[in-house]
Amino acid sequence: MNIVTISREFGSGGRELGKRLADELGVSCYDDEIIEMVAERHGLSKDYAAHMSEKNFRVLYPSTIGCRFAGFTHQMHPTTHQSVQFAVAQQQVIKELAGQGNCVVVGRCADVILRELTPLNLFVYATQESKLARCMSRMKEDEHYSPREIVLMMKRIDKERTAYRELLSDDDWGNKESYHLCINTSNKEIKKLIPGLAAYVKCWFGE
Amino acid sequence: MNIVTISREFGSGGRELGKRLADELGVSCYDDEIIEMVAERHGLSKDYAAHMSEKNFRVLYPSTIGCRFAGFTHQMHPTTHQSVQFAVAQQQVIKELAGQGNCVVVGRCADVILRELTPLNLFVYATQESKLARCMSRMKEDEHYSPREIVLMMKRIDKERTAYRELLSDDDWGNKESYHLCINTSNKEIKKLIPGLAAYVKCWFGE
Repeated sequence: MNIVTISREFGSGGRELGKRLADELGVSCYDDEIIEMVAERHGLSKDYAAHMSEKNFRVLYPSTIGCRFAGFTHQMHPTTHQSVQFAVAQQQVIKELAGQGNCVVVGRCADVILRELTPLNLFVYATQESKLARCMSRMKEDEHYSPREIVLMMKRIDKERTAYRELLSDDDWGNKESYHLCINTSNKEIKKLIPGLAAYVKCWFGE
Repeated sequence: MNIVTISREFGSGGRELGKRLADELGVSCYDDEIIEMVAERHGLSKDYAAHMSEKNFRVLYPSTIGCRFAGFTHQMHPTTHQSVQFAVAQQQVIKELAGQGNCVVVGRCADVILRELTPLNLFVYATQESKLARCMSRMKEDEHYSPREIVLMMKRIDKERTAYRELLSDDDWGNKESYHLCINTSNKEIKKLIPGLAAYVKCWFGE
């Protein structure tokens, strides 16, 4: 099974890179599909499921950040319990989807969750300036964030991703040692990197 | 001018990767050639030039590590003076070689020295276990280092590389933010990654 996982800094274009890489490789890309499947399976609205997913995980663990699942199940309050249930359901879905065949999985600590399937783990990053420019250029018409607000959002979300990974793994989020290839997208058009990246992925898997 | 620079952890296979990548791209690879050229130009023995090169730079600055050139020129002692002269000569050679055409340059902070030519800067790394296995398997018949000695050597050399880069740049050696692509070679056969890596390099330069 050839699985590529994408971890990424907010605004670095990791999601776009994952989608384009999957298209180039002719495999499935799982991103929001994961949340949708969890929502459908457990009778949750998509919005609620998105809220419960990775990006809000940290908020639900105000006093337990840095612990591991096994360490604090006895002290859960209901919200935490729901959150853990959601995380378990999400992990299950990720494993099921990855079990169906070659794919790219974006975010949600798939590199850790799928470790037994020995995926190729990518990390996508960029300078703050480049990430900010990317976010500003992609803002929807009804969104009106200032550059300062976007930078704060970037930091908050990356902090949440760091915290979520801490719950699952001893390897740190964003440390190059936790990944097989770290891709700096600063000031680059992602689609232009994809054929080369796809070639690297194929070599990695010995194709 | 399409220039690729290779920075690397000792034992990660960065030198081999650089050489193979240059062969695959059909361009020159500059590694020991740099030292040889400095030696020839300044009437030094190759051994002495190798001694003066990057890897022994830190030893020559016992009390000034962390400073920048401009900050301590007034307190040089002769050895330091020779060392700086050598570094300047080495930088000059690197710039001259890179000015001749597309190439791969291994080590010696070429990423910093050639910044104005906007090179693609790679960093090659691996787990300690993998680097140790690589070093052990490549030991010459007349070399008899223990695993512990090799690990100490790895750490010393990488520390020297860190210190050398500190003299030239504010960007840290080994931090992914200082590079465009960070390649983990742990337990991989480097030659198998080369066609994919070469494809990525070509995409990077828009070829």
